[in-house]
Amino acid sequence: MSTPPQSDGHPQTWKLTLAYDGTDFHGWQIQPDRPTIQGELQSALERVTGESPLPQGSGRTDAGVHALAQVASFALSAPIPPENLRRALNRTLPLAIRVSEAKTVPSTTFHARHSALAKTYEYRIFLGETCSPFHARYVLPCLWKIDPVLLQESARIFLGEHDFLSFAATDPERSARGAPAILDEDGDEQGSGPGSTLRTIFSSAWQERGSEAGALLVYRVRGNGFLHHMVRNLVGTMLEIGRGQLALDELVKILAARSRSAAGPTAPACGLFLHSVEYPQE
Amino acid sequence: MSTPPQSDGHPQTWKLTLAYDGTDFHGWQIQPDRPTIQGELQSALERVTGESPLPQGSGRTDAGVHALAQVASFALSAPIPPENLRRALNRTLPLAIRVSEAKTVPSTTFHARHSALAKTYEYRIFLGETCSPFHARYVLPCLWKIDPVLLQESARIFLGEHDFLSFAATDPERSARGAPAILDEDGDEQGSGPGSTLRTIFSSAWQERGSEAGALLVYRVRGNGFLHHMVRNLVGTMLEIGRGQLALDELVKILAARSRSAAGPTAPACGLFLHSVEYPQE
Repeated sequence: MSTPPQSDGHPQTWKLTLAYDGTDFHGWQIQPDRPTIQGELQSALERVTGESPLPQGSGRTDAGVHALAQVASFALSAPIPPENLRRALNRTLPLAIRVSEAKTVPSTTFHARHSALAKTYEYRIFLGETCSPFHARYVLPCLWKIDPVLLQESARIFLGEHDFLSFAATDPERSARGAPAILDEDGDEQGSGPGSTLRTIFSSAWQERGSEAGALLVYRVRGNGFLHHMVRNLVGTMLEIGRGQLALDELVKILAARSRSAAGPTAPACGLFLHSVEYPQE
Repeated sequence: MSTPPQSDGHPQTWKLTLAYDGTDFHGWQIQPDRPTIQGELQSALERVTGESPLPQGSGRTDAGVHALAQVASFALSAPIPPENLRRALNRTLPLAIRVSEAKTVPSTTFHARHSALAKTYEYRIFLGETCSPFHARYVLPCLWKIDPVLLQESARIFLGEHDFLSFAATDPERSARGAPAILDEDGDEQGSGPGSTLRTIFSSAWQERGSEAGALLVYRVRGNGFLHHMVRNLVGTMLEIGRGQLALDELVKILAARSRSAAGPTAPACGLFLHSVEYPQE
């Protein structure tokens, strides 16, 4: 149950759950003169409430990446019944962004990103020959013969705590000026010392799934955090293994190398979905 | 079975079946400096074959209207195995346009539009409260309480041969200069005399359908031809009846009035799909 809105004028902390089709947005993070999820949400909040808090996401999704249940937090002074805010935002936001839940949270320290305990991502690959135009925005078409057993064995290697530096995007601009070039998915510098690029993966597996589009091969990964481009780099590397371009036992060496150049390519954004975010006491 | 390509240099008539997401296109018909389905297809044919026939569609779909199986015909001089042409076009076309079948036809007089015997359209309405962003491009969200029995009874009234002038878009520019302002779906003048706006509807019914998006209400109509905006005007008028804004027995009067102003509004393009086109001997 949502906490009833306070009417004493103290700001109330809000938690929104959002789904979006990321195709036509330049990612989560607000940018001048470019449509972004955070920018559209801030502008809808302003039109609906007259206040303009900057909503904080559980993480930044890149341009073209979708979300089934992204979480955003912000504070509002005006008391609003949660269901009214949800409906008003859905009337105001583009149809490509929907608020599935709006609620107030008792804790004033709740923060969509800092309070998150775990996140789950999904990467969807279309197995048929011709993907329907109504599903093509949400899958990577599989142009190769893939060995599903090799994919599954690859995915198992990432389970547990590992240093994922080899799977983290580096920022070429920062590199050039000698600044720390490894970022997490929120754009925070991670340094490159041992420890800062450690992440724990709780589950990592492929499944075949039927859908209206046809048969899909879906990678689902749940972890305590991810580095920038990490899921897409894991998928790009596993696909090299599944296609027979890279031997399975290279994966352990790639992790040990702690170098982006050791791993495979970054899989395209269109197949990636932020599936869900977990918080304490939920 | 497709006819094997001829190699005597005589042009061969081709029949393509296409699916497309019409959201980001300015309709079927080629226009300068605007993305259209016909324009994209012509340009892909040119890149693939070096020839530039103007593909003829079974009908023009409007901006934002989708197709599950539009049919296009054109002639090519070079002999190409049909499956090669299909694959090459799919590699060249935007992902929002897919060729599901390519074949050569023996008759040199086959024409996607003139040879068509019947066409079927579908209009999809989303019944839930919040449509997922991954399906919103392909449905009309239903913002009202609708009586499905009234919808069904409305749909039955259109069965058989009727003068559909009340459901035909008029072209205001032509009207202003006193020219015939009633067009069929291909932009051909229909005059406004009795007979020219007669069409025969073979089937016309609503059905509830489950989908990954949730419950849909789907109108399917099959006829020997349609006037410009006719299906969207039928749907807009039936929705007025289903919402209780218009009495069911007004429909017969609206048909008899032979005046666009008698009928209801034009339903939005996004819910409309060209479902299929039928030809002799198939």
